[in-house]
Amino acid sequence: MRAVVRRSGQLVCDEITQPTPGPGQTLVKTLLCGICGSDLHALHYLDHMVALAKKAGGSDRMNPAADMVFGHEFVAEVIEHGAAGGRFKAGTRVVSVPMTFGPQGFEAVGYSNNFPGGFAEYMALTEAMLLEVPNGLATDLAALTEPMAVGAHAVEQADLQPGSASLVLGCGPVGLAVIAALKLRGHGPIIAADFSPARRRLAEKLGADVVVDPAEGSPHLKWADFGVPSSMMEHAMARMSGQLKGRSIVFECVGSPGVLQGIIEGCPPGSQILVAGVCMEPDSFEPSLCINKQLDLKFVLGYTPEEFAATLHDIAEGRLDVAPLITGTVGLSGVAQAFVDLKDPEAHVKILVNPSLN
Amino acid sequence: MRAVVRRSGQLVCDEITQPTPGPGQTLVKTLLCGICGSDLHALHYLDHMVALAKKAGGSDRMNPAADMVFGHEFVAEVIEHGAAGGRFKAGTRVVSVPMTFGPQGFEAVGYSNNFPGGFAEYMALTEAMLLEVPNGLATDLAALTEPMAVGAHAVEQADLQPGSASLVLGCGPVGLAVIAALKLRGHGPIIAADFSPARRRLAEKLGADVVVDPAEGSPHLKWADFGVPSSMMEHAMARMSGQLKGRSIVFECVGSPGVLQGIIEGCPPGSQILVAGVCMEPDSFEPSLCINKQLDLKFVLGYTPEEFAATLHDIAEGRLDVAPLITGTVGLSGVAQAFVDLKDPEAHVKILVNPSLN
Repeated sequence: MRAVVRRSGQLVCDEITQPTPGPGQTLVKTLLCGICGSDLHALHYLDHMVALAKKAGGSDRMNPAADMVFGHEFVAEVIEHGAAGGRFKAGTRVVSVPMTFGPQGFEAVGYSNNFPGGFAEYMALTEAMLLEVPNGLATDLAALTEPMAVGAHAVEQADLQPGSASLVLGCGPVGLAVIAALKLRGHGPIIAADFSPARRRLAEKLGADVVVDPAEGSPHLKWADFGVPSSMMEHAMARMSGQLKGRSIVFECVGSPGVLQGIIEGCPPGSQILVAGVCMEPDSFEPSLCINKQLDLKFVLGYTPEEFAATLHDIAEGRLDVAPLITGTVGLSGVAQAFVDLKDPEAHVKILVNPSLN
Repeated sequence: MRAVVRRSGQLVCDEITQPTPGPGQTLVKTLLCGICGSDLHALHYLDHMVALAKKAGGSDRMNPAADMVFGHEFVAEVIEHGAAGGRFKAGTRVVSVPMTFGPQGFEAVGYSNNFPGGFAEYMALTEAMLLEVPNGLATDLAALTEPMAVGAHAVEQADLQPGSASLVLGCGPVGLAVIAALKLRGHGPIIAADFSPARRRLAEKLGADVVVDPAEGSPHLKWADFGVPSSMMEHAMARMSGQLKGRSIVFECVGSPGVLQGIIEGCPPGSQILVAGVCMEPDSFEPSLCINKQLDLKFVLGYTPEEFAATLHDIAEGRLDVAPLITGTVGLSGVAQAFVDLKDPEAHVKILVNPSLN
């Protein structure tokens, strides 16, 4: 089958062996698969990602020196089941949490040397994890299930209270998914910040109440507009007098060194910071500021299977409008250029790969 | 009146003006006042502490260049009330959250240029914040209310669940207060780590189930003894099979650079880290490890008035045995030497100051 293979830090179109579904697996044909920011990073820094995952006690089976087919935001069509059979007839459209169970245990589809991801014509997925795409949901919208579930998870992990104001720093796919998940659940006000005008427009479209260009001033100046006390004394007085609204929440969706310290300096006392941006380098910060302000830094990753399934249905039933996020579709031969194009936030948010196109 | 004054980074015994209680204030005579680790730090680094507090949006009224009388862990005796009167008759023993309301707003008793703390013969406290020491509770034990409330607060802030195992790193007064608060609430098992044999013995006395000398191996090796999975895969499998006990909790009660990164590297996935140790320098860590392990770093400080009051009663009713923590008593002239002596963890935990002694 045809696939885009990561090989020696390059993306190359090549013919690779089509997977054979084992017992409990289903062979599916990839219909569409989004390109994730993690893929852009992994193209060049997979060695580092693997080393960090090992250090965290994760899988030690990924080999950056061997071929790998990326792609974990996919919609696919059932072709045939392995020996154990399956629930869905051929042609059924499905999505899945990108984990599959192989002979060596769980593998991350899209970050495995053994199981090709969605930048290939076919995949072998674990049957038990397949979810049928509801009738009537367009395939391209269903492909946004995975990235939108990341936002749903971050919001579910947040200590949001009635009256809580949120600041979303960074309006890439993760930040936009957070904004949409906040809006869907009725949490507001939402302040969103990004240097890109296009991203700020999208943030507004998805539900931000106010958008800020950090080049024009700290986004933290906006807290006061929503009645959030910024000094420790005002905060203490508001709490004692019962005037304090819900806790202030910051979603860090940038993932670069220094961003966290900027939040720690700027955020109101008592804030909770949800760290969803993946900073791959060591970072420094001032613990004493965190203690003085009694901050809570909660690091979030991925989603539960339940959040993934709920997100699919939120999209299918029109509660999450993901169409504005899709800014392009390419065939396999266009993937390498798409990785370059995605670096321009004015031009792109999410590019989908259609492996049936050349 | 006589007091130990911080002046130009030194502790000197001097005569200072006795405070006059304003409306809503009460003049009290200090009976005993503990020396806190923060006092030791503030003696030499008050400039830095004040700068950090300002940066965090705290009070900007502390002047490190002016005289200051430390002491915020006090028991005192009511002498007379200001113009607004008061609830307690002269001679009543009282404790108080070390905050008082002055003409310029709230002041931290013990860290104020305007209100002398407990290393002085007399203090002016806010009457509304006084708590009567229950009849029969020894004065020296009541003096431990403040530091023990710090432990109660840290434990109250923790996401302890049935079956949660806790690791307490650092068995100084804060760590020991955490251990006692965990034990009081029935949370266990408790692993405690400290380089000092004397501190480890105290940790056991206060309720630690196992103590570790970090010089002999990582305290994180003990998690497995209590069935806490250490790898991400074991953790995920345990969660899916319903075998996962309560969340693992780490109390950071050291407050030195690098300690946090050591915890981040060693702790089980999904852990919550309560940061109670006050690290006054910038620190560095690897955010990607925190994300991979989905850690939660919660920075805690102080206590609520309710936790302070509850701690007083836990001591009074014998639920918290604080007597082993008291390792010495000095008069005002012994305070400077006590600051030196407290640096030896084999010799001391808590030294009380009795300003009526010379």
